[in-house]
Amino acid sequence: MSSRDPLILGIDLGGTKILTSVINPEGKMLSRDHSVTPAAQGPEGVIQAILTSAARALEGASIAMEKVSAVGVGAPGLADTKAGILYTSPNLPGWQDVPLRDIIQEGLKKKAFLINDANAAALGEYYFGAAKGTPHFIYITISTGIGGGIVVDGKVLNGCKGLAGEVGHMTISDEGPPCHCGNQGCWETLASGTALAKVARKRIETGADTTILSLAEGKIEKVTAQTVQSAAEKGDSLANELILQTAYYFGVGLANLINIFNPEMIVIGGGLSNMGDRLLKPAYEVAGKRAFHRAFQAVRFVPAALGRNSGVLGAAAFAMDEMKRKERHGVAK
Amino acid sequence: MSSRDPLILGIDLGGTKILTSVINPEGKMLSRDHSVTPAAQGPEGVIQAILTSAARALEGASIAMEKVSAVGVGAPGLADTKAGILYTSPNLPGWQDVPLRDIIQEGLKKKAFLINDANAAALGEYYFGAAKGTPHFIYITISTGIGGGIVVDGKVLNGCKGLAGEVGHMTISDEGPPCHCGNQGCWETLASGTALAKVARKRIETGADTTILSLAEGKIEKVTAQTVQSAAEKGDSLANELILQTAYYFGVGLANLINIFNPEMIVIGGGLSNMGDRLLKPAYEVAGKRAFHRAFQAVRFVPAALGRNSGVLGAAAFAMDEMKRKERHGVAK
Repeated sequence: MSSRDPLILGIDLGGTKILTSVINPEGKMLSRDHSVTPAAQGPEGVIQAILTSAARALEGASIAMEKVSAVGVGAPGLADTKAGILYTSPNLPGWQDVPLRDIIQEGLKKKAFLINDANAAALGEYYFGAAKGTPHFIYITISTGIGGGIVVDGKVLNGCKGLAGEVGHMTISDEGPPCHCGNQGCWETLASGTALAKVARKRIETGADTTILSLAEGKIEKVTAQTVQSAAEKGDSLANELILQTAYYFGVGLANLINIFNPEMIVIGGGLSNMGDRLLKPAYEVAGKRAFHRAFQAVRFVPAALGRNSGVLGAAAFAMDEMKRKERHGVAK
Repeated sequence: MSSRDPLILGIDLGGTKILTSVINPEGKMLSRDHSVTPAAQGPEGVIQAILTSAARALEGASIAMEKVSAVGVGAPGLADTKAGILYTSPNLPGWQDVPLRDIIQEGLKKKAFLINDANAAALGEYYFGAAKGTPHFIYITISTGIGGGIVVDGKVLNGCKGLAGEVGHMTISDEGPPCHCGNQGCWETLASGTALAKVARKRIETGADTTILSLAEGKIEKVTAQTVQSAAEKGDSLANELILQTAYYFGVGLANLINIFNPEMIVIGGGLSNMGDRLLKPAYEVAGKRAFHRAFQAVRFVPAALGRNSGVLGAAAFAMDEMKRKERHGVAK
């Protein structure tokens, strides 16, 4: 990024919301535009919503587009950072091989970059959050699914097509439950919020003695990970048992990452991480029993610091990085 | 490495043999000294054997120690590249927290570097073998265990303590058989040569109809992965079934690495890879079913090219790299 144009427009496209912000090099958000993702309208409607949100974010910061040096877009799903294509997205129905980067670039008349949302969040935490100054770490988000971003030498591990970091889809139980990705026994089929809610519903249906259902207005379909958490806080023993089971599986996957990466830090974010010690302490204990002792001792577990802003800040950081790289290599903007 | 001193002394310390070689920057081995590792003598005896082997390798190349710029040591087990310590080694009894790098450095009066053997082999394949010119790839060795080396941006992924790359100890079946590392269901407890021999012995003991035992001189303790391979080649159906089972587990682990790293290439070496298509074809099919389609399509599976020399060449390459890095950063030798 040149000193003349130090601002980046960050866009965090999610399955339910779009967050757009004008961001300076220090990670200060000069504006915030939240809107609902019109996911049911398919790519066309969503892209229109992104462009509208971008205009509002610029307006909110009283910044003209000319003052922005690049656009960074974080998106859920299989995002090819090199080609700028969002291949598929579990949260965006109808998206198939959408050249999102180029569409945004043409729509906003500005150089744009595309990155997977979890990889973006990892970069956000690295530049502006919990992992500042920690060049080797792993960011894990545990919520409806499990996503991850791996930072090596201060750069997000993209792999050859920008598809790396799909840690939620590593098999930890080869005969485990089927996953929407086509695999089975994936980490996220066993340790995510969705997995926790699913197993709670199953246990309720088979007649378990629990307060979980009453906390969900008596409606089985309203049972979520949060319901289970509330029940656990009130001392429900099934809820506590199921959270421990989720923690066990979460720990198995953490041990794998520790053995493979020997990271200095694992930053944990996402809705389920709000359960805190109830979920994370037993998970770390499992990881400690399963990972190599030396490698486990070397890792620090740290809560994510940027909350819902990690994605948009990271998408901006990615765009900054790419612009710098291009400048260093003398590639024309 | 400066142009004045372009030679490296490479040492590949294994559980059964030591290979020492004087290596030039193009990866040419100017000498080779093979010797037996006196593992039963513990660290002291083994270190003495390394120093003796080093002297013979120099003699064999008619090179004086002054012409060598550094020593690269590859060693099996948990090797801390930063501290230069070999913490433990499954193949070297009695080794506990041995400061091998400094011992070699003092013994040979030459700057030395320590690296895990599988990481070394990965670097060897990168600089001089199958992965030349491929900056993002994974090297897997499948033999008695499963080891790995991950190369990102042309550098081996060491992690914060040099312990990264222990892919053989990722859990793929959380309730699977116990592993010597303390974990259970590790990739190498299910897909290594040791695993294959173990399951064959168990099936023979429970009365399976097979020719495997007769190929092992009728002695159950002589049944190895190679015996199973020989039986399979002769059409033994149990042997073929067990190799397919090993292939299944090997494929599950490969899928994990593909989803996590999105590598451009996976280089496969080690004794079991000599089974070729019989083992690898079904393993790739399993990986293809389990990994993300786009990521699977992007990877090329390639046999290792350096055979038994990958470790010593890689240890030398690591030393070259580290010397260059030190020179760039102006650190005194």
